[in-house]
Amino acid sequence: MAIWVKYSLAVLPLLPCLLLFLAIKNNEFKEKIYVLMILSLIGYLLVDRLVPIISQYTLKRGLCGKDLGKKGTINESVDVPEALGIVSGIVFLVCAILSSVVYFSNTSHQQMIFNSALFSICFMIFLGFTDDTLDLQWRYKLILPLTASIPLLTSYSGETAVLIPAQLRFILWNDSTKMLTTLGSVIDTIFTVDTNAEGKIIELGPFFFLYMSLLSVFCTNSINILAGVNGLECGQAYIIAVSILFFKLYDIYISSDHTNVCGDNQLFAIIMILPFIATSLGLLRHNWYPAKVFVGDTYCYFAGMTFAVIGIHGHFSKTLLLLFLPQIFNFLYSIPQLFKVIPCPRHRLPHINVTTRLMSASTFECKASDYQYFKSKRGDVSCPNYTLICLILQVFGPMYEETLTTVLLGVQVTSTIIAFCIRYYLLHE
Amino acid sequence: MAIWVKYSLAVLPLLPCLLLFLAIKNNEFKEKIYVLMILSLIGYLLVDRLVPIISQYTLKRGLCGKDLGKKGTINESVDVPEALGIVSGIVFLVCAILSSVVYFSNTSHQQMIFNSALFSICFMIFLGFTDDTLDLQWRYKLILPLTASIPLLTSYSGETAVLIPAQLRFILWNDSTKMLTTLGSVIDTIFTVDTNAEGKIIELGPFFFLYMSLLSVFCTNSINILAGVNGLECGQAYIIAVSILFFKLYDIYISSDHTNVCGDNQLFAIIMILPFIATSLGLLRHNWYPAKVFVGDTYCYFAGMTFAVIGIHGHFSKTLLLLFLPQIFNFLYSIPQLFKVIPCPRHRLPHINVTTRLMSASTFECKASDYQYFKSKRGDVSCPNYTLICLILQVFGPMYEETLTTVLLGVQVTSTIIAFCIRYYLLHE
Repeated sequence: MAIWVKYSLAVLPLLPCLLLFLAIKNNEFKEKIYVLMILSLIGYLLVDRLVPIISQYTLKRGLCGKDLGKKGTINESVDVPEALGIVSGIVFLVCAILSSVVYFSNTSHQQMIFNSALFSICFMIFLGFTDDTLDLQWRYKLILPLTASIPLLTSYSGETAVLIPAQLRFILWNDSTKMLTTLGSVIDTIFTVDTNAEGKIIELGPFFFLYMSLLSVFCTNSINILAGVNGLECGQAYIIAVSILFFKLYDIYISSDHTNVCGDNQLFAIIMILPFIATSLGLLRHNWYPAKVFVGDTYCYFAGMTFAVIGIHGHFSKTLLLLFLPQIFNFLYSIPQLFKVIPCPRHRLPHINVTTRLMSASTFECKASDYQYFKSKRGDVSCPNYTLICLILQVFGPMYEETLTTVLLGVQVTSTIIAFCIRYYLLHE
Repeated sequence: MAIWVKYSLAVLPLLPCLLLFLAIKNNEFKEKIYVLMILSLIGYLLVDRLVPIISQYTLKRGLCGKDLGKKGTINESVDVPEALGIVSGIVFLVCAILSSVVYFSNTSHQQMIFNSALFSICFMIFLGFTDDTLDLQWRYKLILPLTASIPLLTSYSGETAVLIPAQLRFILWNDSTKMLTTLGSVIDTIFTVDTNAEGKIIELGPFFFLYMSLLSVFCTNSINILAGVNGLECGQAYIIAVSILFFKLYDIYISSDHTNVCGDNQLFAIIMILPFIATSLGLLRHNWYPAKVFVGDTYCYFAGMTFAVIGIHGHFSKTLLLLFLPQIFNFLYSIPQLFKVIPCPRHRLPHINVTTRLMSASTFECKASDYQYFKSKRGDVSCPNYTLICLILQVFGPMYEETLTTVLLGVQVTSTIIAFCIRYYLLHE
């Protein structure tokens, strides 16, 4: 791809946000955001400048990996520096702290929430970097996000109820009999379904904290699983982040035709997401095909926790899950292999043809007789790995690595559009 | 030393604290502290158990160093795992977060302070571990604590004035003329000396934030400089921490003869310091001579930031500096070498005699003619390095490494006793 095409594509997702921002009429809000934009721009430049410097340090320490997509080229054996997400992470924290000074200097409650949110993110980046450095075992990957989400949970003082969209209310509430449905009654034994509100509200109580923890674990790990192609981890997080920004700006835009008042949770999300977008974009520049650096678990954990935090404190967790549709699909689709129902090879990255440089779905082999799953088939099985990446390569055929990333990011954008339709048209009340 | 002597010596500093605690009559306060003690005990056991496990990971990554004190023994070339302060740090954070749930669940302001304090400490541990892993340059060692102290500064909403002890007030205020002294007037041009309070109060205003940042930089680096002998970094931090606990308990004990009410800043300091003591002790067990692990910059930064945070939010910063007397002396004494006024060799660790196993002061050589500092002396100079460790070896003569650490910790205890006398007798009002 020509360099100007890449750059245009990279800033394209930001365009709708900018238009929406210009359409908002609340000038006081806009002035605040200008300050934030400048801060974020500085963050972008800092990351862009620091990544090459810090990558020398990580290389020296042996924090590096081989790029499997460069097999068969002269760069095959070049060590690519790992864990550069740490640069984005640290710059993000500094930008976010400074932003919070601009906004929350007077309200102690908002400042408390903001501090605990950043504490959780900082803890997660730290644990991610520890993981990259020390190569911890799998079980730690589940324990770490749980640990890091504790500050979030202890500072959470909001609602512990979940609102059910009007269109789905029939599952819990029978409007003709004015009683809970069977499923509603079952759910009511564990949680509390508000019968006065006719099934509109499920009060999760202490389970809400479990839900928040699980959201953190899910967000951090799902980005980590949909990975392995240059620019994908960073790219998908970038698209999700821009989508969150768009949704929040749209919320403000439609909130009131004349004033466009910005609520606390919108402001919280915007303050968080702007430096995240900037620092991710700075990293993406170096991580895009051909990748000069890898982002590492550090970045995946950092991104995941940032989204979880925004989901929880921005009262946005259900819509957030809609933005994670490709990741959710990838996770569900991977389950047979993740839980070893069928064999799971060490790497499930796409296979590269060293002469054409085209990528195709990688496969795994197994004796069908050993696995219940394949009993119906005869003889041994050789089928593509159960990942979204391999599925796309099967559907669209072999493609170049850069094209593959672009297509996958296209899928991510599509999921945003679907989420937008569901959120604002289907479930709009 | 026999093992039981070591263990007795290790818990000895805690004994006065325990006695004081038992003497306090406020039962409500004591019940809360029991919960904290149990949490801290769990923290101790966790660190003790995790250090050997994590040290295998750090060893695998090449995060290790040679123990210069084992020169000439069969263990000379054994790699000792580095940066194990990370275990103390993470366990500390988890214990502290859980403690905060027990105490501050209702007051949003206290929770905000606590979260920002932990955020700063977490950021510092993270940066310390990054430093250990990537071996950053010297200038970063000054920038990092400044960066990590930002959350502390932004959440600080307390006084920005410094109280001058009654005995020192004459420096600023002339009681006979009822006017500021010359020095007082000079200081008044930069800060504001409160003339109504007769020189009792200096209002630092924005400079207070500078003071807080500098305190963080000083605390983190001064522990890092007084180091290099098995168990010293961890040991000195342990003694300082126990001293803080003692001072705070004593404050409560003398606060009111009948009720022993515990103020917010006392409670803050105690909640912070208990898990710190426990996790440091757990690490010290493995870091004591002969050290099986090294604590790394991670631990020094972690300890320094914890003290800085307690000093600032616990309204304790001047007394804290009294507890840092050995570190301050070591820093001032090192200045000629640190700023290259006289030559500074790469390592200034004591020299070990490989046959007797006794340590003696290491020396540096230089051409006296090259250095203004030595112009008065004739010929070339060979004199002991300018560190507290070498000074002690000169005064008391050569000694075993374990004895040396014990003597240095004895010096630390002496400084606590001096601080106690100054704080409660000399400056008592």
